[in-house]
Amino acid sequence: MDWLNNKIPRADVSYYKQALGRQAQLTKPPGSLGLLEEIAARLASLQKNKQPSVDRIWVSVFAADHGVANESVSVFPQAVTAEMVRNFTHGGAAINILSNYVAANFEIVDVGLLKTIENGKVIIERAGCGTANFTKQAAMSHKQLQLAINTGKHAIERAISQQSQLFIGGEMGIANTTSASAIAVVLTGLTVQQLTGAGTGLNADKIEHKAKVIEKAIDLHKTFLISPLKVLQYLGGFEIAALLGAYLYAAQQGLPVLVDGFIASVAALLAIKISPEANTWFFYAHRSHEQGHQCVLQHLQARPLLDLDLRLGEASGAVLAVPLIQMACKIHNEMATFEQAKITITK
Amino acid sequence: MDWLNNKIPRADVSYYKQALGRQAQLTKPPGSLGLLEEIAARLASLQKNKQPSVDRIWVSVFAADHGVANESVSVFPQAVTAEMVRNFTHGGAAINILSNYVAANFEIVDVGLLKTIENGKVIIERAGCGTANFTKQAAMSHKQLQLAINTGKHAIERAISQQSQLFIGGEMGIANTTSASAIAVVLTGLTVQQLTGAGTGLNADKIEHKAKVIEKAIDLHKTFLISPLKVLQYLGGFEIAALLGAYLYAAQQGLPVLVDGFIASVAALLAIKISPEANTWFFYAHRSHEQGHQCVLQHLQARPLLDLDLRLGEASGAVLAVPLIQMACKIHNEMATFEQAKITITK
Repeated sequence: MDWLNNKIPRADVSYYKQALGRQAQLTKPPGSLGLLEEIAARLASLQKNKQPSVDRIWVSVFAADHGVANESVSVFPQAVTAEMVRNFTHGGAAINILSNYVAANFEIVDVGLLKTIENGKVIIERAGCGTANFTKQAAMSHKQLQLAINTGKHAIERAISQQSQLFIGGEMGIANTTSASAIAVVLTGLTVQQLTGAGTGLNADKIEHKAKVIEKAIDLHKTFLISPLKVLQYLGGFEIAALLGAYLYAAQQGLPVLVDGFIASVAALLAIKISPEANTWFFYAHRSHEQGHQCVLQHLQARPLLDLDLRLGEASGAVLAVPLIQMACKIHNEMATFEQAKITITK
Repeated sequence: MDWLNNKIPRADVSYYKQALGRQAQLTKPPGSLGLLEEIAARLASLQKNKQPSVDRIWVSVFAADHGVANESVSVFPQAVTAEMVRNFTHGGAAINILSNYVAANFEIVDVGLLKTIENGKVIIERAGCGTANFTKQAAMSHKQLQLAINTGKHAIERAISQQSQLFIGGEMGIANTTSASAIAVVLTGLTVQQLTGAGTGLNADKIEHKAKVIEKAIDLHKTFLISPLKVLQYLGGFEIAALLGAYLYAAQQGLPVLVDGFIASVAALLAIKISPEANTWFFYAHRSHEQGHQCVLQHLQARPLLDLDLRLGEASGAVLAVPLIQMACKIHNEMATFEQAKITITK
């Protein structure tokens, strides 16, 4: 995994300034398109292109099982991970419908289901048969960590081979908010209570139980949690490791990333803790209903595009935000300037 | 204008309940699509259709001039209203780009420019040559009010003749935030300070001046401000009257409306003050940067879809929200249920 510390390219500030200059000349009050102006200018500086565009979208959903599911931390049984993967391959999940809407390339990757699905529609690149229960031992071995991170890298290689302009990573894994909360506690220094939420729908008692499970795990492993990668190895999930690998490699390759919800944001946080410059390449799609997500976004000083009380994961919130980014680009590229439209700008 | 008080059809609650029932069966944690589930269910109940859809979008932008522009309440000179209308006809404005993106039908209506534009691309249905300066006299006569309101009704007639499924109204009129703030003060009982903002970009001194202009006008006309229509006649703009007429008639005809920014929301507020049931048919697209808009949305207890610091008007914020509504419908209609996908829902 030597590549993890490879250099991340910078945005070209001259394109950013030029883009903001153009925005001020377009036939609208300066600044009146708010966050969309900033997004167009950032994309111009990342793509080094006066006319930024995000027409080709790549969506990879990473699925894996979690040993900690045995601790009653989810309302859904563990079998649902694989059942939902099958659903993705049949086109019946939210992410399928949304990917179709924006004409994204969609793929589903088995990075460590308990039992693989061999229907020819899943990319199989497994780090194991689910993680170990991290309340008892490390979630994964160092070797498994490497495999899972590289699985993410390979998704970016596929995305780039198809000239994708935006990468969206999603995840599926029953119990993975437990893992994400545990990682976020260690990386942000916030409390287990702040970062632990309802996941797919726990009640207050169950959330308290989930928080105790997380506390117990962090306490068990505390002497080993000395780096982002160690935190991921001891408390993580294979799909979170794959997201981390995808995000870091995308940043290294200069491919902009649109980060989805809580679990994806924790993977982005891991990436930034390893290489702070990675954040240059990240856009944040939405603020979810999961309270830990709000804390992580605040920690990252991220302003997401949407705030719709989503809490589904599987990349759905990110794909919902794609049209906004596309429209921000089109406005930037296609609007008339005051000069072109012969509009009076001073009295 | 007898039609103004015509009956507004109700939503069909049985479709709403059925839609929420279906949402709970779709392959996602119940409620995990947040606001999008509510939108799909509302649309099902409005369209009386288990499979709601908003594929055919109608956008009418109403343009008019304001006598109060003479009071130095805008950073842009009054000539910009007509210049922007010309820009709309050439396809160079933000709303043109956005309407193209969602394949909306776009039209621009001159409901009272100082001087009309005869290039064959503007619908000309004028209530006058701009309003009078309402710091000195009523903004418009009763006859002009009627004409402007009916102009909005006619836009809905065109929209319905093309089987539109969603109506979006926009506005263009230099100084129209001054008019909208004045109307909102009288209708909400909030203060001039709360409802007066920067518009297209005033500094703090100019905002204070604008607030004084509004206070003076309200004081001058106070004995006449006894009904929503009188408030509109004395303090309004032709384009605000047209929006009111469009919104009320759309509600009467059972055509859902997506309300844009501050000025549009004040027109929606007028409509609701005249016929509270109109609100059944209104969706709110975004919370703009204009502080008065935030107050009006709160007064209406509206939760908008977007919050991107927009402050452009011309229907732009509403069109930006269209893909979210379309995706909400597609998810509702096309996702697999737990039963179809054979997913375990209990341990």
